[in-house]
Amino acid sequence: MAARAGSGRSQTRERVLEAAIVTLATQGFSRTTARAVATTGGFAPGVIYYHFDSLDDLFVAAAQYTSTERLTRYQERTAGASSAVELLDRLRELYREDQSSGHVAAVQELVAAAASSPRLAEQVREQGERWQTTAEELIRGQIRGQMFEALVPVRELAAAAVGAYLGLEMLSHLHANRVSTEALFDAARPAAVMIDAFRRK
Amino acid sequence: MAARAGSGRSQTRERVLEAAIVTLATQGFSRTTARAVATTGGFAPGVIYYHFDSLDDLFVAAAQYTSTERLTRYQERTAGASSAVELLDRLRELYREDQSSGHVAAVQELVAAAASSPRLAEQVREQGERWQTTAEELIRGQIRGQMFEALVPVRELAAAAVGAYLGLEMLSHLHANRVSTEALFDAARPAAVMIDAFRRK
Repeated sequence: MAARAGSGRSQTRERVLEAAIVTLATQGFSRTTARAVATTGGFAPGVIYYHFDSLDDLFVAAAQYTSTERLTRYQERTAGASSAVELLDRLRELYREDQSSGHVAAVQELVAAAASSPRLAEQVREQGERWQTTAEELIRGQIRGQMFEALVPVRELAAAAVGAYLGLEMLSHLHANRVSTEALFDAARPAAVMIDAFRRK
Repeated sequence: MAARAGSGRSQTRERVLEAAIVTLATQGFSRTTARAVATTGGFAPGVIYYHFDSLDDLFVAAAQYTSTERLTRYQERTAGASSAVELLDRLRELYREDQSSGHVAAVQELVAAAASSPRLAEQVREQGERWQTTAEELIRGQIRGQMFEALVPVRELAAAAVGAYLGLEMLSHLHANRVSTEALFDAARPAAVMIDAFRRK
């Protein structure tokens, strides 16, 4: 292991980031102290400060880390979808992963915390842009060659989707949503079927 | 004024609530101390504790106050809309009011803060239900008698709308949205025109 110090170091850094995500998701931002992250990860609090200058620094890196990891997974999984129905099914699976991994809960905490950290706000802005771009590409892929292609406000739909993802997660976090995300995916299915039917014509 | 002590008392309570909303909107949750609210409202900090047991109590009341006030205004203004296009125009105006009054920024702060206050979370849940119900009624009003009425997933659309409102506001608060809410209203216009056209048949 000593010969692969670079890799070992980056592995430890990743363990700290994963522990930060889990702590944010399970305990909320206000309780995510260095001690709490260390307890979650099973390492000494000093390990955090070996890799990060401050807790703020850790949060900024955690936002970038979880967003990049999930965005890569979204891009890989959605790339092979051959129909709108298949795309919808894959998005549903991806969202389930977001929930069970704690990603979406951690993101909600980080976005809320960004109100009091300019650096975190800047990172959230940057990651938000990347998700917006990916959402636009997914929508464009579905409407390409369709009769109604020119009528679809792609940027606005993508913005609404990214906004709804965040807002629904906030409400679900507070158990304030009467309608489950699963029900939303079910409700979108007829639209996906219709998109596929138009494409085959 | 002494003869109208009850009314005077409730007027002062309202002034405290308004000051809390403005302080939340302009300074964020973490900086909304009793002193900051008092400075905003131009009264002594003691006035707050005459009307509210604690800051948490004030936040719960502020969430209920601003939500109820805005919901009433939304219901009044949307009741008279005779077409989907007119409804959309009125919603745009209402959203502009939400922004200029600080309501939407204050709500974003309160929803984020609900993660660490069970009573505030309960209040957000309750108000969220009321907005969900109102959104469902607005959607039902637009699709009543339409050919596609049975195909529209009303509850899910309403949940997505309430979620998107919150999420878009969070992103806009962080200047993380590439697409303005005004552009979203513009993008929805052709759909509203279509709904009106179908209705006239």
